[in-house]
Amino acid sequence: MKTVLIIGGMAAGCKTATRLKRLQPDYEITIIEKKPFVSYGTCGMPFYASGDVEDFMALASTPWDMVRDADYFKNAKDINVLTQTEVIKIDNNNKILSAKNLITQQEIKLKYDYLVFATGAKPAEIKFPHPESDKILDFHNPLNAKKFKELAQTGKIGSVAIIGGGYIGVELAEAMVSLWGIETHLIEMTDRLLPNSLDKEISDLLVKTLSNEDINIYLQTTVQSIETDENLFVHLSNSEVLNVDLVFNCTGIKPNTSMAQSIGIKTNNFSAIEVDEQLRTNLTDIWAAGDCICSKNLITNLPSFFPLGSLANRQGKIVAESIAGLNPEFKGAIGTNSIKVFGFTICSAGINEKFATQYNLNFASVWGTFYDRPDYMPDSKTIFAKMLYEKNTLLLLGLQLAGAGELTRYIDAFSVFASDKKTAYDLTNFEHAYTPTHSNPMNPLNFLGAMAISQEKDGIICANPYEINNFQGQILDVREKEEIKALKCEGNVIETSIMEFRNRIMDLDKTKPLLVVCQKGPRSYEIARFCRNSGFIDVKYLGGGLHLARLILDKTE
Amino acid sequence: MKTVLIIGGMAAGCKTATRLKRLQPDYEITIIEKKPFVSYGTCGMPFYASGDVEDFMALASTPWDMVRDADYFKNAKDINVLTQTEVIKIDNNNKILSAKNLITQQEIKLKYDYLVFATGAKPAEIKFPHPESDKILDFHNPLNAKKFKELAQTGKIGSVAIIGGGYIGVELAEAMVSLWGIETHLIEMTDRLLPNSLDKEISDLLVKTLSNEDINIYLQTTVQSIETDENLFVHLSNSEVLNVDLVFNCTGIKPNTSMAQSIGIKTNNFSAIEVDEQLRTNLTDIWAAGDCICSKNLITNLPSFFPLGSLANRQGKIVAESIAGLNPEFKGAIGTNSIKVFGFTICSAGINEKFATQYNLNFASVWGTFYDRPDYMPDSKTIFAKMLYEKNTLLLLGLQLAGAGELTRYIDAFSVFASDKKTAYDLTNFEHAYTPTHSNPMNPLNFLGAMAISQEKDGIICANPYEINNFQGQILDVREKEEIKALKCEGNVIETSIMEFRNRIMDLDKTKPLLVVCQKGPRSYEIARFCRNSGFIDVKYLGGGLHLARLILDKTE
Repeated sequence: MKTVLIIGGMAAGCKTATRLKRLQPDYEITIIEKKPFVSYGTCGMPFYASGDVEDFMALASTPWDMVRDADYFKNAKDINVLTQTEVIKIDNNNKILSAKNLITQQEIKLKYDYLVFATGAKPAEIKFPHPESDKILDFHNPLNAKKFKELAQTGKIGSVAIIGGGYIGVELAEAMVSLWGIETHLIEMTDRLLPNSLDKEISDLLVKTLSNEDINIYLQTTVQSIETDENLFVHLSNSEVLNVDLVFNCTGIKPNTSMAQSIGIKTNNFSAIEVDEQLRTNLTDIWAAGDCICSKNLITNLPSFFPLGSLANRQGKIVAESIAGLNPEFKGAIGTNSIKVFGFTICSAGINEKFATQYNLNFASVWGTFYDRPDYMPDSKTIFAKMLYEKNTLLLLGLQLAGAGELTRYIDAFSVFASDKKTAYDLTNFEHAYTPTHSNPMNPLNFLGAMAISQEKDGIICANPYEINNFQGQILDVREKEEIKALKCEGNVIETSIMEFRNRIMDLDKTKPLLVVCQKGPRSYEIARFCRNSGFIDVKYLGGGLHLARLILDKTE
Repeated sequence: MKTVLIIGGMAAGCKTATRLKRLQPDYEITIIEKKPFVSYGTCGMPFYASGDVEDFMALASTPWDMVRDADYFKNAKDINVLTQTEVIKIDNNNKILSAKNLITQQEIKLKYDYLVFATGAKPAEIKFPHPESDKILDFHNPLNAKKFKELAQTGKIGSVAIIGGGYIGVELAEAMVSLWGIETHLIEMTDRLLPNSLDKEISDLLVKTLSNEDINIYLQTTVQSIETDENLFVHLSNSEVLNVDLVFNCTGIKPNTSMAQSIGIKTNNFSAIEVDEQLRTNLTDIWAAGDCICSKNLITNLPSFFPLGSLANRQGKIVAESIAGLNPEFKGAIGTNSIKVFGFTICSAGINEKFATQYNLNFASVWGTFYDRPDYMPDSKTIFAKMLYEKNTLLLLGLQLAGAGELTRYIDAFSVFASDKKTAYDLTNFEHAYTPTHSNPMNPLNFLGAMAISQEKDGIICANPYEINNFQGQILDVREKEEIKALKCEGNVIETSIMEFRNRIMDLDKTKPLLVVCQKGPRSYEIARFCRNSGFIDVKYLGGGLHLARLILDKTE
């Protein structure tokens, strides 16, 4: 019999407890949680805020509608849960933890054999001048979601400012607009949304989606200060002042590790707990899991911060198995994730250009525009893609997908390949489930793999969609007349269709740079190859075609 | 400069030609096709028949609405196409092919350096007595889809019989009913639909879906004969006689390889051409690809017949690269596929029990019922799963999924794992893209992997859903009272909730077989483990829960 204390009762803590109890039924396991509830589905909060989920406690309930509270954990799982209880001190030499009940103020001391930190993360501090106000909320504490909804239901919120264009900020922006019709301002300091996951091209598609829904987006903009009388006045770095009823601080999170640090647990420069592959900390008999740790990035092989609910669950399982002596291994992660707003899905896995550059990788990219199913099917939708790979090895580094179609399957499959250090060659062998209601005979990963190989081995270069702007050289537009009529290409353009190009390109100067363009990419890819074979020296095709370029360059729509 | 002849102008042939032309622009490439069109998307035919696709030639057109005909291949790709041209003789010693134009009857002789068989497959012959009638159609020739639609549009088809419950038969059944409201009979000789892919449990879900749409399904039933006057009379082995306006023969296909065999190309006992990993036949300078070949099954390592459009395309690419001297490798396939009828998706990868038994594998299965996204989300849908693995090694053998939710992503990811000979352990590490609009924090593959490991390592046995019928032993129903009220479990049942079971099971006889059941599986899995830990000798939990069992045992609905 051993006594196990788990600090934190969200995903990682609860998973550790339940898995460990299954493996070691005679262990005495106690979860200590500061909030009034445990096992709360915090990822669902934006959908509670939006009204999609009506009942606040639905996010803390089992599928058979039983609230996962202390009673439930005790009776169903024989696990002790102390809610509204804060850890105030840990004496690790004597293995005694002191905690305080926040309601009764009563202090208790608990002995432990094993200790688990599942303390999660906390909202980043607001660094600009602002008043103390209950109208400035983080969206990390579920009670703030509740507070918002109560206000929204009484019609008291006409406008909000959301500071931070990460996942929570973007999901929240949708929630504000979709049900409540609230005037919404989304403020992001970098030049893009989801800056840790996306490159600008793909972020631009998301910006467009949100802008089309009348969300006001401020990129490369910071908040200088917030002032208040009745309303809040948000002063932006561009000198605008937003007059809003509510501000959400979604500027990010930091690992909640001060207690861990206080007893000598090693953290990295981001304050995330350092763990080994069994999620053990540097102190014997102490483990950590979830949003308070850093884990190995399988792309870079460096420790990374991945605050993802999916990983928290898997990590809880690993901690339990490690405590039970099963020698499990948490190999690491690549940060696979997705988001869906207004029916538009954005998902990514691996690293983006920012990180690839930061890690000094010798990388290149390819872009593609695909149908999610054959174009002859009436409901086929578009998938936009950008893939990063290492130039010499063709190792997969990252993938970003966006679109309204069926695309999460390709990020998931890419996740399997990239986590296993596979290359572009492996993508060309990817066997997906094909049927016209779902997919094309060749899938986007097959194509992206082939494009990467062609780029490295045959010099068929994929141009960044932005390159169509001010390209210094000849542009060969190989679309049909009707397509060209619908959207003219600007610059030094030669128009020819794929039925006639063989004659036309004889007139071109083979020593000058040539950019071949078409609507989605396949035609220009093929003709770029033909030109290359015919002696052109510097040939590119426009990745993702004019369809992608047009969307992100805002030429139409 | 080399001359390449390709026999067959569907997916494999056209892909070979276009890819090879890109690699070897100076090769003279000619496609010879018997039908009046090439590059026809035959997988789309059921959707043309159903009316989803209106234009017959949409299935042979590019996304920019250009018909992929001989002119297109000549001008855009510099590839020769001879349609309505039949190969009548091959003199491989002198490398001369003789063909006949079916319109002009003119014969031509063509020299070749390299020859490619992309001759596809043909419908299986009808073996029972039947009249010569243009009302008995296969659904392999696109012209028959056209013929059907013309008849349907004039209202002349009130009822049809479809013989064969494979993919085409099932898709066709939906097409008959969904737009045309035709009385539809689907006749299958085995005890299930999609018998080469599915086990009976999962097929039962499909049978139910089709039955709910008023399709008449006859399993374990063969056609004895068809007689005719005005209508057709289909005599079934169960003595019923169906009076219908049209019969579709969808009893399967056979590789179209008599011409290949005539020049000494080796075929297997199913008449499929044997090829090496570069898709070369046994004769020098002759390749084969698509539905006329057998390729390596990566699960069994044995040659298998995979007539799938996705593979035909990839194989065409391999042939082209092999001819061009690039030494590609077609590693093989596992037969990943999917189908969607009436909004219900069925997909599978790897082998089912029939094949696992046939190949003498020491295998076991687990079943699961999952939500595709958190149950608190308003549009969460159910995914049913059955997974097969090898007992000693935990190597993945096969997966079958069914449901209305977002599930193709999991068959695709499984396909990557299983093709690479991964195990149940690898599934527990699968990092998918999680967000509540799309998925749960733990995905079905994570669970199925863990269930397989528990079954082999900890003796937590997953029971086949059929076992709930006539289980010889005690049944422990751990659902809540409300759930039990909605559907009582039959047999020797002890009812207790997960809040109370700890006291109740003390009364049970630990030496008797125990089957723990709940609604979807997780509760019974956990409690089965508890019972096992508490000294019960023979404990199982009901795989997929009563939800799955109820559906396939037809107790309600």
